[in-house]
Amino acid sequence: MPKKQLTNSDAQRLFAENVRVLRLKLQLTQEQVAEAADLHPNYVSSVERGERNISIGNIERIAHALGVPMYRLLQKQEEWDAS
Amino acid sequence: MPKKQLTNSDAQRLFAENVRVLRLKLQLTQEQVAEAADLHPNYVSSVERGERNISIGNIERIAHALGVPMYRLLQKQEEWDAS
Repeated sequence: MPKKQLTNSDAQRLFAENVRVLRLKLQLTQEQVAEAADLHPNYVSSVERGERNISIGNIERIAHALGVPMYRLLQKQEEWDAS
Repeated sequence: MPKKQLTNSDAQRLFAENVRVLRLKLQLTQEQVAEAADLHPNYVSSVERGERNISIGNIERIAHALGVPMYRLLQKQEEWDAS
């Protein structure tokens, strides 16, 4: 079993970028996403800056607000077309 | 924008079941997964019972320990073949 030192930041950055790209594609503001997800706008903003070690519960809320299944937000964008 | 009351438990249950199914397919114990993920065995056990609002950082660690991309663990099993 390989053991590798992981940082949270790779996952956080991937999630952040996915949220941002999808939100802009939907032409939504951070405030609108926050409202739909029942989260604070400042929280959504910090998520998009990759600053949050976000929980699965809040991943679910944001995915719902963006109208995508949760797993999309953890998937690299080059894999979006393939699946 | 539809607003829906979300509970953490759907997402937690999906994640829990995916970890369990993959771990058993790989014939790993919870202790082995915990060791590879650098997490406590009790923590992995509670994750598999769907009790943890797990963070993206720990999702990444467990995905690494199971040798799958993170998004697999948030994807419904009927979608595994399709993507």
